[in-house]
Amino acid sequence: MAEAVATDPKASDAPSYVKADDLRAFVQDLLVKLDVPKDGAYITADVLVEGDLRGVDSHGVARLYSYYVERLQKGLIDPRATVTVLRETPVSVALDGGNGLGQVVSYRAMTTVIEKAGQSGMAMATVRHSNHFGIAGYYAMMALKHDMIGMVFTNTQPLVMPLFGRKIMTGTNPIAVAVPCGTERPWVLDMATSVVPKGKLEVAARKGVEMPFGWAVDRDGLPTTDPNVALAGGAPMPLGGTRELGGHKGYDLAIFVDIFAGILSGASYGPHVGQGGGARDIGHYFMAFRPDLFMDTNEFKSRMDVFVRELKETPPSPGADRVLVAGEPEDAAYERYLTSGIPIHPKVMQTLTDMSNQVGVPLPPHSASPLA
Amino acid sequence: MAEAVATDPKASDAPSYVKADDLRAFVQDLLVKLDVPKDGAYITADVLVEGDLRGVDSHGVARLYSYYVERLQKGLIDPRATVTVLRETPVSVALDGGNGLGQVVSYRAMTTVIEKAGQSGMAMATVRHSNHFGIAGYYAMMALKHDMIGMVFTNTQPLVMPLFGRKIMTGTNPIAVAVPCGTERPWVLDMATSVVPKGKLEVAARKGVEMPFGWAVDRDGLPTTDPNVALAGGAPMPLGGTRELGGHKGYDLAIFVDIFAGILSGASYGPHVGQGGGARDIGHYFMAFRPDLFMDTNEFKSRMDVFVRELKETPPSPGADRVLVAGEPEDAAYERYLTSGIPIHPKVMQTLTDMSNQVGVPLPPHSASPLA
Repeated sequence: MAEAVATDPKASDAPSYVKADDLRAFVQDLLVKLDVPKDGAYITADVLVEGDLRGVDSHGVARLYSYYVERLQKGLIDPRATVTVLRETPVSVALDGGNGLGQVVSYRAMTTVIEKAGQSGMAMATVRHSNHFGIAGYYAMMALKHDMIGMVFTNTQPLVMPLFGRKIMTGTNPIAVAVPCGTERPWVLDMATSVVPKGKLEVAARKGVEMPFGWAVDRDGLPTTDPNVALAGGAPMPLGGTRELGGHKGYDLAIFVDIFAGILSGASYGPHVGQGGGARDIGHYFMAFRPDLFMDTNEFKSRMDVFVRELKETPPSPGADRVLVAGEPEDAAYERYLTSGIPIHPKVMQTLTDMSNQVGVPLPPHSASPLA
Repeated sequence: MAEAVATDPKASDAPSYVKADDLRAFVQDLLVKLDVPKDGAYITADVLVEGDLRGVDSHGVARLYSYYVERLQKGLIDPRATVTVLRETPVSVALDGGNGLGQVVSYRAMTTVIEKAGQSGMAMATVRHSNHFGIAGYYAMMALKHDMIGMVFTNTQPLVMPLFGRKIMTGTNPIAVAVPCGTERPWVLDMATSVVPKGKLEVAARKGVEMPFGWAVDRDGLPTTDPNVALAGGAPMPLGGTRELGGHKGYDLAIFVDIFAGILSGASYGPHVGQGGGARDIGHYFMAFRPDLFMDTNEFKSRMDVFVRELKETPPSPGADRVLVAGEPEDAAYERYLTSGIPIHPKVMQTLTDMSNQVGVPLPPHSASPLA
């Protein structure tokens, strides 16, 4: 379950609501103006808007300027990159993204994986020389409509210190897994391997509140509850937090992800990702397989339905509403925002306005209140 | 990095030391007397002794009686089970373990996966109707000598409550990943998806000490630091612990493992594993692939070497010795115990003695002090 950036309910923070289709068209038009071919611009826009629809606003249009538009304008991302096939077998493909948009090469990688898995039962892809690709879950979920299980890893810019260390050595390196169900909604995991994203530390600093013990370390790698101390050269902790609570496991999960996404792909990895100011050289890993390698697909999906229902029906602990399953909060956001429009924070709206003026694409229609 | 059961340094807890070869032969002979064929008895003994050698004594001969011998004697595990192939493709096999020893069917499954990956580049296996298989890392590490990456999941008897729940719904469901290096030792992750194993709660109760906040919940699913309260119907927490510290992620990782090992295999899963008193119906998942699908194997291994060295050379935080990499503590235990002999706790030694008398196999030579 991904983390949404907490927003303050003050009037100055009141969002604008934009229809998903309008937002997607705006992003696509903007990218086309920056020389991205129409198809690639659509894919990129769709991934970003899907992030917003699923409530993962840290990976939606809030990043449009700093991760994509600014870098395209500065020539740090190639809008018309050529994707190169480095190696290929019936079960695998190794791609070089040519420093193009991460979404474009990732969509192609997962499409190829699904095609190959359709033939061979399972397949994998790696991608090197890529950039931020939005939410990992988008690509894992591409497997669902083919009744396949999808799994996606990516490395990210370095943000997290390993347990016992005082230097940032890994990204938040997420794991996404999507599993089809029958009548229940698919089970979709999309989680960073850090306790929290860095954005949570920034929110605490803005609010001037202490953080929970276990969120972050200071510049020496020692736990701190002061967000300003953590932001001055410190870092979020790996999942688990301290040694006592299993922080070595979160650290190892981040390395596991980076071995598959970074080392194996031939991309940059660990502390090196995106350093030096040029191409980021982010790496990704994609996998899909057919459950019918092991049992009839319908039987598998029925078993998933039963398990998901059993989890949902777990008696709740006092004070809790109920046990959730992976993807439920995101699905709920998706349903809500598809009708209400996507709530856009005023600061993000300002960046959209600036880009609209600068690039010459009209802002999408937006409303101060939910559309429905 | 796996957890060893903490031992008290009092004289009454002083271990006996047994050579690994002698211990393995003892376990094998014992199992053969219980009607297990010689080959299967060797594999089972080797997996258990490897657990002890790697310092994971919770998964070594300490479990020999309760998980294996007693169940064989009661007819709850079939010593001569027939393994059945349910489905097979060039990249996959679905096996039914016939309620035999988990080690026997798992060794066969991983051997088959490695053979198929040698041909096809990658392969997977599932196993249903199995039993405890020892340390997951054993099977993942089988891939290493073939210059492959191995990944192994298993479900376990139910022990952990999901976040927000007050019913035990998952096992400690471990994840094992083994990755070959060049000159560095392989990177080997073998971790439960709970914060700690239940054994840690039991140790705290025996010592009469409070547990760290975040280890366990009481019978209502609420955090407790009292080990006796936790053991009275409570449970270890999923990795992350509380919601605030990412406990939903540990819970979701446990479900991810159970979907692959339990649902997909056709085994029992979640709260049902081993319930009812008969066959446990544990499920496993195995995967291996060749790095040369994506780049030259030697290049991959060199890149791993560099990454591992960079991680080891991370500047340490104050008070810490240095940053470790996955598998290092287990490798260190292995080197030590191979020469000193495996330290066996007196309580475990007593169970070995009892089995020796009962089944009629002489105890292995043992010494009150390290052998070298």
